[in-house]
Amino acid sequence: MSVITVERKVLEKNDAIAQQNREVFKKKNLFTMNLVSSPGSGKTSLIERTIHHTKNKFDIAVIEGDVQTSLDAERVAAYGVPVVQIITQGACHLEAGLVRDAFGQIETNNFEVLFIENVGNLVCPAGYDLGEDLKVVIVSTTEGDDKPLKYPAMFRNASALIINKIDLVPYVNCSTALIEKNALSINPSLKIFKTSCTNDEGIAEWCGWIESKIKR
Amino acid sequence: MSVITVERKVLEKNDAIAQQNREVFKKKNLFTMNLVSSPGSGKTSLIERTIHHTKNKFDIAVIEGDVQTSLDAERVAAYGVPVVQIITQGACHLEAGLVRDAFGQIETNNFEVLFIENVGNLVCPAGYDLGEDLKVVIVSTTEGDDKPLKYPAMFRNASALIINKIDLVPYVNCSTALIEKNALSINPSLKIFKTSCTNDEGIAEWCGWIESKIKR
Repeated sequence: MSVITVERKVLEKNDAIAQQNREVFKKKNLFTMNLVSSPGSGKTSLIERTIHHTKNKFDIAVIEGDVQTSLDAERVAAYGVPVVQIITQGACHLEAGLVRDAFGQIETNNFEVLFIENVGNLVCPAGYDLGEDLKVVIVSTTEGDDKPLKYPAMFRNASALIINKIDLVPYVNCSTALIEKNALSINPSLKIFKTSCTNDEGIAEWCGWIESKIKR
Repeated sequence: MSVITVERKVLEKNDAIAQQNREVFKKKNLFTMNLVSSPGSGKTSLIERTIHHTKNKFDIAVIEGDVQTSLDAERVAAYGVPVVQIITQGACHLEAGLVRDAFGQIETNNFEVLFIENVGNLVCPAGYDLGEDLKVVIVSTTEGDDKPLKYPAMFRNASALIINKIDLVPYVNCSTALIEKNALSINPSLKIFKTSCTNDEGIAEWCGWIESKIKR
């Protein structure tokens, strides 16, 4: 596990670096996902369950983004996969240059899937291409069913939506059908999964979809 | 209910306007709170329960901030209190000039308490003074107990912490004691409330604290 702390002003153009990242990822035949959500929606838990469920099928590396701590990287490192933590020191989103630097610190080439866990923020990361194949937006049932309408850019720019914490639906005022309807009204091509990282509902389907995307 | 949509570039200095706002609020003997949290932590629900519980004790006005919709203002307006919606059109936080403009659109002087509900974002609003008496940060138990460590600026700049959705503790992997410990490690002077907007636990204590702050 490595830690990168943001200390220099990012002067380079984000989109140009993102395109360079994309070319590097393509040459290495990686399937790369940029995971975006509110704080506490379950990005790290989803990565943990995905690693657990796919350990005999394909290999995963992880770049973690966080404002201040390396707690998430420590959780993921416990699974024995390569992980680099980016600490943004207050910045509200990852940028492509940080991802490039973090990617350079991954000490192995033995993986087919790269997760980039963005800073927990449903607004700012929407506008920053990191060079990923696609963005996956995660929303938990405890956040209510109006989030796609209130934070449309994130849902518009994502290719997949994970409705997480579905085990909590009996206890909260939230309709997963309404989340789906609201999200599809913003972005009709969203691929939608419903998951629980507590009882693993939906995890197999999600992992199967990732496997179908791997570039071998 | 009014709606303000951000269309002009904010050129004026935020802090100078915040100070002007503070002087206006002081002249009017208002107790003003800037509510900040992740999306879906329950800011609007907390305002709703507070209005309901205090309707015979004091009067409340509300300024709502949202990236895209006026859904929250519609919810609050149903309680018959004055409310103005600011739509930031993608911007990730409220600024003092927007609050000044919104405040000017409140059509009555008959209130003692002003809630400013910020954009759902646990990062960016931390740095923007709006002229409020104090910031209240809300974190829900479903977000996990590590949020104060991961988003320290928000907890450092707040005067009160509301741990919301405590009715869901039996169903989630979260210790409210650990939230408290983590939050107090960042900001030892935080006043902490534990609430549920579903069963109203803790709401009376919260409302009593607000009443103690009213400047009559």
